[in-house]
Order: sequence, then C-alpha cells, then structure tokens
Amino acid sequence: MILLNDLHDMSFRARKSFLDLSVSPLSQRNEVLIRMADLLGSSADELFAANNEDLRQSEQEGLSSPLLHRLKFGPDKLKQVCDGLHSLADLADPIGATTISTEITEGLNLYRVVCPIGVIGVIFESRPDALIQIASLCVKSGNAVLLKGGREAFRTNQALCRIVRKALQDSGLPEDCAQLLESREDVASMLKEDELIDLIIPRGSNAFVRYIMDNSRIPVLGHADGICHVYIDRDADPEKAVRITVDSKTQYVSVCNAAETLLIHEDAAPALLPEIAKALKAKNVEIRGDEAASKIIDCIPASEKDWSTEYLDYIISVRVVHSLREAVDHINHFGSHHTDSIVTENRDTAAEFMNRVDSAGVYWNVSTRFADGFVYGFGAEVGIATGKIHARGPMGLEGLTTYKYKLIGSGNILAEMKDGTRTYTHRPLGENCPL
Amino acid sequence: MILLNDLHDMSFRARKSFLDLSVSPLSQRNEVLIRMADLLGSSADELFAANNEDLRQSEQEGLSSPLLHRLKFGPDKLKQVCDGLHSLADLADPIGATTISTEITEGLNLYRVVCPIGVIGVIFESRPDALIQIASLCVKSGNAVLLKGGREAFRTNQALCRIVRKALQDSGLPEDCAQLLESREDVASMLKEDELIDLIIPRGSNAFVRYIMDNSRIPVLGHADGICHVYIDRDADPEKAVRITVDSKTQYVSVCNAAETLLIHEDAAPALLPEIAKALKAKNVEIRGDEAASKIIDCIPASEKDWSTEYLDYIISVRVVHSLREAVDHINHFGSHHTDSIVTENRDTAAEFMNRVDSAGVYWNVSTRFADGFVYGFGAEVGIATGKIHARGPMGLEGLTTYKYKLIGSGNILAEMKDGTRTYTHRPLGENCPL
Repeated sequence: MILLNDLHDMSFRARKSFLDLSVSPLSQRNEVLIRMADLLGSSADELFAANNEDLRQSEQEGLSSPLLHRLKFGPDKLKQVCDGLHSLADLADPIGATTISTEITEGLNLYRVVCPIGVIGVIFESRPDALIQIASLCVKSGNAVLLKGGREAFRTNQALCRIVRKALQDSGLPEDCAQLLESREDVASMLKEDELIDLIIPRGSNAFVRYIMDNSRIPVLGHADGICHVYIDRDADPEKAVRITVDSKTQYVSVCNAAETLLIHEDAAPALLPEIAKALKAKNVEIRGDEAASKIIDCIPASEKDWSTEYLDYIISVRVVHSLREAVDHINHFGSHHTDSIVTENRDTAAEFMNRVDSAGVYWNVSTRFADGFVYGFGAEVGIATGKIHARGPMGLEGLTTYKYKLIGSGNILAEMKDGTRTYTHRPLGENCPL
Repeated sequence: MILLNDLHDMSFRARKSFLDLSVSPLSQRNEVLIRMADLLGSSADELFAANNEDLRQSEQEGLSSPLLHRLKFGPDKLKQVCDGLHSLADLADPIGATTISTEITEGLNLYRVVCPIGVIGVIFESRPDALIQIASLCVKSGNAVLLKGGREAFRTNQALCRIVRKALQDSGLPEDCAQLLESREDVASMLKEDELIDLIIPRGSNAFVRYIMDNSRIPVLGHADGICHVYIDRDADPEKAVRITVDSKTQYVSVCNAAETLLIHEDAAPALLPEIAKALKAKNVEIRGDEAASKIIDCIPASEKDWSTEYLDYIISVRVVHSLREAVDHINHFGSHHTDSIVTENRDTAAEFMNRVDSAGVYWNVSTRFADGFVYGFGAEVGIATGKIHARGPMGLEGLTTYKYKLIGSGNILAEMKDGTRTYTHRPLGENCPL
C-alpha cells in the first residue's frame, strides 16, 4: 500500500510529466508504442514468469476457471497486445487538430485546438492486457495515467508497467507518465487529488462506480451496468428475430453488451416467442417471463426486479408489450442507456425506436454484441461510457481529448469593442491554428 | 419551497417532456423562441411590475446598488433579450448532424449522430435575463431544463418562466420542458435525482460549485473561480503591455475573465512595471507586489494567499518571474485554468506559453476580457466551464449536446464476425444517417 502523501506525490509527478508529454510530437509518442512492443517481446520470459506466479496464487485462493482464463497472459495475448500497439501507432494524431477558426475582429483570430485532458486515473479489472491497452491509448493521446489493475494480476501488471515506463524513458519522455497503484486504499487516496487529476475512468461493477462517484470531486466517466434490450417488433422478420436474440444473449454472456431483456410485441409473440424460446433453450438459457409470455411459452415467472438485473449469465427476462411506445418506455425506465436493438422490417418504426430510446447505442436489426470500440473502428477502447457527458458509448482516443481556445491578437482590448472603435466580424477562417 | 417528492415529480415530468422535445423539428423549436419574444413584448407591463416588486424588496433588504442594477429588468433589457431570441432562432440546428459514418462490414452501417443531453439543472445568479438566455439555449438544443435563479429575482423569474412555458405550449411542445425551482432546499432535492437529471450547471461562487459536486452523483459542469493572468514577457511591446493589463484588470472588475495577477519577466520589469503601475493607479487599482516588484514600484506586499485570490475588485497582485517557464508554472499552479494571456512580440515564446499553459483560453497579445460566448461567436453561453470534461471555456449550444451511435444492419450477429463468415471493412461512408 502506498501512503496518502505518496499518492499526492505520484499525482503531482504525473501532472508535471503530462505537461512534457502533451507538447511532444506524434513521432515521439508513436516511438513509445513501438518501443513498448519491442520490450514486451524481449521480456516475454520475465512477463510469463510473473503471470505464472499470479496464476498460481489465484488458483490457491480458489479463483474460478473463467477468471483464471482472463488472468492468463501467455504468448497469444502477448502477440495480440504487440499487434495492437503497432495498429495504434498507425492511427492519426488524436491531438492538435483545429476544430474552430474564426476571425473575431480584424486582426484577432480565435482557434479551438484539440489537446489532451491531463492526468487520468483508470481502474480496471484483472485482465492484464488491459494495462497495455489503456497506457498506450493515454500515451498516444498525450495524457499521463495512474493505473490500478486487479489485485490478482498485480505481479503481471508490475512487470507490464515497468515496460511502459522504460519505453517512455527510452523515447525521451518522463517515465512518470504511467504509474501503477497498488491497493484499494491507494484508489481512495487518488480520489482526493482533484486538483491534480482530471478524470477517473472506473471499469467495474455498478456499485464500485457509484462508490467512486460518491467519493470524489474528480469527474468520472463511468461504465456501470449494461442492461441491454432486444425488442422484437410486430413487423419483425422471424429469422432475424431468432438469430439476433440468440447472439445478443449467448455469444458471450459475461460482458456488458450482452442482452438481458427481450421485449416482444403482442402481435408477434404468439408465432415468434416459441421459436425464440426453443433456440435459447438449445443454448441452455433460462427464461423468466411476464404473465403474457408465460401463457405462450414455458418459463419461470419474472419479478419486477428482473427488469433491472444484469445477469451476465445464461438467463433472459421476457416481457410482452402492447406497442412500440411501451417498449421504448420500458427501455428508458429500466435500461442502463448502454445499447438496445429493435428487430423490424418497418423503417418508420425503426426510426422512432432509434430516436426515442435514450441510449448510447440504438440498433436496427443488429445484435447488441456489436457495441465495442474495436468493432466501431476506433482501434481500441478505454471503456464504454453509459453517461452522456463528454464521451458516450465505446470510448477510444477521441474520448481522451479536450480542447483549448487560442486567441491571437495584436494588443486587442475589450474596451475598443464596447466603444465601437472595432466591430465583431465573426468570419470563419477555415484554417489551422498557426501555433 | 417545493417538497422532495415534488422535485422528483418535476424531474420525472422534465424527462418525459425531453423525449418529445428531442424529436421535434428545428422549425418547432425556433417557433418557441419567436413566440417567447412575442410574449415578452406583450407582457412587458406585467414583467416590469414583477421586477419592480423584486427591486423594492431588495432595496428594503439593503442590496448594494451594483446588485440592484443587475437585478433590474426594464425596457432596454427586454429589447436585448428579444433580439437575442431572434438571433438564436437564426442559428443552425445544434442537433441531428452525423459526425461519424462507417461501414462496419458489408450491409452494416454505423452513424454517430448529435443529440440533446436530456434534463439539465441550471443554477444561476440574480440577473433575470439569464433565465431567458438559458431556457432558450436549452429549447434550441432539445434539452429540458430545471431553472433555479437568484432569490432576489424570484417574482421576475416566475413571470419569465410562465412566458417560456406558454411559448412551449403554444408551439405544441410540453410546457414541462422548462420548470422553475423556488429555494435552496429545492436545489438540494434536485441533486438527488441522478436517475432523471443528466447534468447540473451551477453558476456561482467556488464554494457553491464545490457544494454541488460534493452532494450529487449528477455530472457537474462547473464554472468556479476565474483567476486569470497577464504575463508580460521579456519581448513585450510596452504599449500593448500597458493597454492589455489595464483592460484585463479594469474593463469590468467583477467578472470571472478579469485578470487578478500580473506576472512580468525580470528583464522587462524595470522599464515596464512603473508605466503599468501608473496606468493602473490612474484607474484606482490597488497593487500587491512580491519583493522584486516592490523594489521597482510602490506597492502593498503580496502574501502567498494573493496568488490564489479572485479579487473581483480594483486590486491586482504582481509577481516578477525569472523566466517564461516560471510564469507558466505559476499559472498552472495558482490559476483556475480559465483564461491567461501573454504579451510578447516573440512568436516562439508565445507558442510555448500557449501550448504549456493548461487553461481553457490561452491568449497572445489580447486582453483576458475576451473570454465570452458572444465574443467567440457562439450566440450566447450557458456558462464558462473551467473543467476539461465535455465542454471547456464559454459553453454555447454545442456544450448542451451529446451523441448516440445508430447501427443499421440486416440481421447481423457477432458470431459471424468471430467465425470469419464476414470481415470488418471499416470503410468511411461520408454520408448522413438515413434515419
């Protein structure tokens, strides 16, 4: 455990380091990523040894086999991570673009320029490749990062963070752009550093994200529950209805973009629900239905609580609705504003669903499982934001940036604008900021 | 005082109303603005009477004359407000634009579309025209708003809010898109509605913004202190140095973009500081200088506390620095990341200052007083954000929007992407979302 004062020092060093990183050229930031890949390759044995230690201890402590699988960092993961670093190095610079350029008055030009946010604290689960993914996204976007990984992966994360720091140093950038926290107590200390840390990204349970929000003034981009819905409309194509429901629920049950609730229009239910239930049961999915559903298929009765439960398991709740509007209201009320899909052949119905459902992802005839930064073409993601402020949905490099206004004049004073000596032109310049 | 349950009801009604407003066409939202202007004109007598009541009571309670002046809502203000509504109606639609369009795989298209945030709570000072400005920006951008104005302006705000609600209703939109809170207790109740309210924008003192942050899970876009700096570089033009310092400090002292601290390079100080001091003293500005400054000019000794004080008055603190870097470090440490200006004829020095100072506005040879949404050409502003998340600096219509991802397919499932039946194309489409 790192003491409170140490966390303050770490945050202070991170902020100082950020200022150097933020003005570094793209080539230098890319060099860090390539160097990271090289060092990962040459340190493979050391990394696997650290990971084996973590695995051994977690096994002794009785960690479940899916979790042990996530914790494993072997040659396959290593290759994936290195490939990811090279892809990230190939992406365009996420900072430096001019997004507004306006002449305010003759000789006074305003530019809005994309820049990094500053110091970001990221708390992530026990998948060790997440450390490299997050740290590399932060380096590419010019942000310093404080990293807190899962306890089970601590040795692996230490070894990985050493490599990130070495790569920074080898490329002439401050190693304190990436620092590793050790314990939950460190997280608590980090939350107090609102003068030095600009953003916290917690990945974890809903309760954990709330704990963070309740205990810090630092803005939080939380990815909490994923209560995703599939709505089968009256005009749904039966085959699409079955395949989208099955994929959304079962393609990978333990992730946030898996569907938890199926809503189905009363006109479609009698014919379609039995088919869907059959396909789900073939995948060993337990069905919890409302009264109307239970009259059509064999299922466990759903309670009110089911509508707001993220099962992350082979369980689905089913509700029969009277109208599109009832489906939309259900989703807006019980959902987590993550990703919701409509299955219909009716374009107007699809449009109304997509415009009225207040979620980060609204899909038409697509499985909810597509909600992912890589799938969207963002290269990678630091998380999926379920809030609406700053970034929404899969959050890639762009979510790690902000902007500043650069105003370039020649001695301009507001008094001259007020007394009419000069007048506002507000003429778009369509040019990049010259400095 | 509205009871806690009422606040919950109000928030619930606001959310319901938002869903209708969010899908309304631009013409309808503009109609509300024009109708507001018409109603303001035809209700002038009633408004002035309400305002006179507020003024009379505030006078009795001993409100200072500058505050009484801010509270006054007479024919001039009315005309300004109506002109503002017509200008706002002329602006392009802030929502609906497609900002990303990508083919994910053949027949599966992703669109990122700008949309309103939802329900916004705004707490503002006693200037009653702020109510119309904020409500109209929210209507134009498709957001519902809960408004809490200054206690002194309560009768005026009630009359104004009635007009906003009437204009909504007359235009066929739910009147609950705009609702007025009554007391500080209502604000406390509002902060608990994190399931229904998406964003709080507090305008007020630093302490008040912190209180909001400490007592809500709702994201806060705070505009807290404005501790703005003018840095006179070694290569400053003397005339610009004087006029920019004087304008930044004295053009309007009680606003957040007024300068509070002057930093001056030691090479420039002996020649320039006496000139600047003379000009400031001619405007009755009290100067609090560090030791080096006090050797050059006659001034009150500055204490450490001065560097982090927002005077909002005819007082300025002055510090002599050894280098550009020392100035940058001072600003990043003591400033509020609002707006800071360098006076120099050296382009490289200006670039380094603008890139290293971590503030929303970084100016070269311009008075800090230019930090304003109208000046920037945004039409109007709901506030000036000093944080870095979501919106930074003067926050106009764009700051009141977020986006959603619309994914349009034909029965696409992730299993087909994983097993290689289909491959990712990630081809830019360069088109608008069709629905």
